[in-house]
Amino acid sequence: MPDRIRHSGFAALRCSADEATAHIRPGDTVAMSGFTGAGYPKAVPGALAARMEAAHGAGEDFRVRVLTGASTAPELDGALARVEGMELRLPYQSDPTLRERINAGRLEYIDIHLSHVAQHAWFGYFGPIDVALVEVSQIREDGLLVPSSSVGNNKTWLDLADRVILEVNRWQPAALEGMHDVYYGTALPPNRKPIPLLHPDDRIGETTLRVDPAKVVAVVETDAPDRNSPFAPPDDDSRAIAGHLIEFLRHEIARGRLTPQLLPLQSGVGNIANAVLEGLADGGFRDLTAYTEVIQDGMLGLLRGGVLRMASATSFSLSPKGIDAFNSEVDFYRERIVLRPQEISNHPELIRRLGCIAMNGMIESDIYGHVNSTHIAGSRMMNGIGGSGDFARNGYLSVFMSPSTAKNGAISSIVPMASHVDHTEHDTMIIVTEQGLADLRGLSPKQRARTIIANCAHPSYRPMLEDYFERACRESYGLHTPHLLGEALSWHRRFVETGSMRP
Amino acid sequence: MPDRIRHSGFAALRCSADEATAHIRPGDTVAMSGFTGAGYPKAVPGALAARMEAAHGAGEDFRVRVLTGASTAPELDGALARVEGMELRLPYQSDPTLRERINAGRLEYIDIHLSHVAQHAWFGYFGPIDVALVEVSQIREDGLLVPSSSVGNNKTWLDLADRVILEVNRWQPAALEGMHDVYYGTALPPNRKPIPLLHPDDRIGETTLRVDPAKVVAVVETDAPDRNSPFAPPDDDSRAIAGHLIEFLRHEIARGRLTPQLLPLQSGVGNIANAVLEGLADGGFRDLTAYTEVIQDGMLGLLRGGVLRMASATSFSLSPKGIDAFNSEVDFYRERIVLRPQEISNHPELIRRLGCIAMNGMIESDIYGHVNSTHIAGSRMMNGIGGSGDFARNGYLSVFMSPSTAKNGAISSIVPMASHVDHTEHDTMIIVTEQGLADLRGLSPKQRARTIIANCAHPSYRPMLEDYFERACRESYGLHTPHLLGEALSWHRRFVETGSMRP
Repeated sequence: MPDRIRHSGFAALRCSADEATAHIRPGDTVAMSGFTGAGYPKAVPGALAARMEAAHGAGEDFRVRVLTGASTAPELDGALARVEGMELRLPYQSDPTLRERINAGRLEYIDIHLSHVAQHAWFGYFGPIDVALVEVSQIREDGLLVPSSSVGNNKTWLDLADRVILEVNRWQPAALEGMHDVYYGTALPPNRKPIPLLHPDDRIGETTLRVDPAKVVAVVETDAPDRNSPFAPPDDDSRAIAGHLIEFLRHEIARGRLTPQLLPLQSGVGNIANAVLEGLADGGFRDLTAYTEVIQDGMLGLLRGGVLRMASATSFSLSPKGIDAFNSEVDFYRERIVLRPQEISNHPELIRRLGCIAMNGMIESDIYGHVNSTHIAGSRMMNGIGGSGDFARNGYLSVFMSPSTAKNGAISSIVPMASHVDHTEHDTMIIVTEQGLADLRGLSPKQRARTIIANCAHPSYRPMLEDYFERACRESYGLHTPHLLGEALSWHRRFVETGSMRP
Repeated sequence: MPDRIRHSGFAALRCSADEATAHIRPGDTVAMSGFTGAGYPKAVPGALAARMEAAHGAGEDFRVRVLTGASTAPELDGALARVEGMELRLPYQSDPTLRERINAGRLEYIDIHLSHVAQHAWFGYFGPIDVALVEVSQIREDGLLVPSSSVGNNKTWLDLADRVILEVNRWQPAALEGMHDVYYGTALPPNRKPIPLLHPDDRIGETTLRVDPAKVVAVVETDAPDRNSPFAPPDDDSRAIAGHLIEFLRHEIARGRLTPQLLPLQSGVGNIANAVLEGLADGGFRDLTAYTEVIQDGMLGLLRGGVLRMASATSFSLSPKGIDAFNSEVDFYRERIVLRPQEISNHPELIRRLGCIAMNGMIESDIYGHVNSTHIAGSRMMNGIGGSGDFARNGYLSVFMSPSTAKNGAISSIVPMASHVDHTEHDTMIIVTEQGLADLRGLSPKQRARTIIANCAHPSYRPMLEDYFERACRESYGLHTPHLLGEALSWHRRFVETGSMRP
């Protein structure tokens, strides 16, 4: 028996990825593992795409509905998108091919809060789940599954699916065993109970996933790396944004509103998030905690240096270098990292209880603090809302960050009116660009506008924003949230027509 | 000692409303009781307004910052707005004079989720609370306060304020004692614990409010009714909307997604909400529960008839007839009604745990299901978001309802793009007009658009919406959420310029 499949019943189900695809039928809803390029199935999606391509070549329709944890990788989203094999996809995605297909209107994509996915599946809102296709790192002697580098919605997929296909990936460190905390206490209303998590490091569940062996139809062995690519080092803008935010946090400590240990950090993925983490380390912060979605490279260093005391997440998103660092000191990290289902990492109850400091990127904010996290020019999907709404609505602080311009200045990230709203004025507290920080707490819309324009807008766009706002304050229908309806979206329109928001 | 002030220390602080205003200074932050026209202070605000008017006449500035539970009445919001006595007001309001002042840009108004108000005050986001001005129904021998007809944020105001002015209103039924449930287990992060409420009827707190006697500076006796005016009987549109919603609920029961007892109902205030409640009664529903903000007349009848088993709220909003009904059977209702602080009635943790069915009105929905609850034509404030976001984001179902047109057809409540977004596509599941119901669960944006246009739009606007959507599907920059940026807000612009959205 292979050392990663230590249960004879499961070992007997071993087959090739191609053979496993026989259990997936056209029109099926296939719920897959994967979160931020980690822990997604590596082999079966490609084999499925090949079958689809053949079917399409023969004039047959073969598409499936794909649910995941969050973004995956070219081997999954890319492969299935390339052959037009998805009729539906949810939630968050970031694959270029898939994005192109979504914006060409070639499939249905549903953008949804990450904390809502599992419960909406349980509520039946996505219909029956035909197949769960889940990567694990081991199958134990007792038939329990050691999760892979992400947990995501895997508990829900395994519980709800009619048929289960497991990919056992020996590339994943065996030492992952023991790091996960899978909470099995959820229920449907009216039988829900308080979730007994009081601190980011509380363990409230089990280290393994359960699966009904009778539902498992195929076990595929793989030995393939996660997607993760190296992160670029933070650039000047990212460092400036991080600097403004850290200065603000110091100010909050000085006013007695935060302790030097802050509150549990939630941090998006990417350049700015990495710069913030670096800045916290450079700034002498110690004994912080993270209650977030993704463990990035930067967090490993912070854990190693004692800046972070522990980190809770639902996924790893490490570069090859980060994976080496993790593998070389697994025992150290295992005591300081907990990976949970995303319904727990993103749960409104827990985020509000813990009082997370939510730090997320954005595409644009309007002068009143409505934030667009998802759509270019109101119509073209970028990646999705992810967990930003879960954390922004329920956190102690909600921070949204972006450079003040994009595309060499052709786009301003501060606009008169957001072309799409993912986070309303009711949910956004702090806006940061490399220009500065706008603290919107306790401010009315017009006060917010003056603060955002003065502190966050790029100097090359600031006079245009001031002009818009001043004229709106004179000419608007109502003066609570002054707007000029004929101009409110004119910057986006100009961008679409000319390639630049500048006149 | 008066029978409603049975504590000698408090009795000694009795004074006139005019005398009490001496404890309120220009620039103070005054946190007042009041929620949906119930339990607001009746005397001191008017006396304060008179003092302000005199000061303004003498060329002095005298304005205060006013925080409440939600909407109050002409004696409070109206009186202070009339004399331009508020520099800031939050959260929800519905007074015509105040609304006029807000939309003339004469004061700062902050619209905020009702579940956020208390915690943002505790976090210090509104600065220090100088004065709490709170109506109660009795002061007990032990110095504890029996709340009035609403609880709202009173616990927080009494805890945080430097000085406390109490109004003891003998008009409020003495029999209110015992109906309230004031939870004193809240804390600030990182010390928060699960809130131990598992069912809508659980009592987890105390029946009285605590106050530090050393902070109480004045006690004013009043004998004045709450604002509440009679509700108009449901009209045809409201009954049609209710009919569609109840048909939908029956369908959910038939599919096994809801039991005949449904899940705890949250229901907004007004005509449509009353029609839904009536419809549930007529439809033979029994043993339902409500976990909501406001107890309206309709709910008393439902409790009496066994349609509702119990109702949890933070406020009464009864007509004079409803008050008579309540007073004549207080013992019956006391066992079936719980009034809680609004941080508990609207708490995300509890709404998600209980799985509330959230039913709220709206101003408009766009074809993609972004809902505007607050602004006419994107700029003019109506009342505020209230608790609709708390319930819509966290409930089992989120329903938004409106007649398909307003102002004799000059306004369509289904528009190409919402002119202001309070509830994003991520938070809206069901849209209902008298035309029909759109079930958006599990639908992508374009599927949502087709459903909303077909099921909810008024026939006189439907072709225009179809035309917009079809052209957007051909010409939009991105085809995920197709929009024509030059036209997206043109309906609102036309309304502002011509008084009608029709061309």
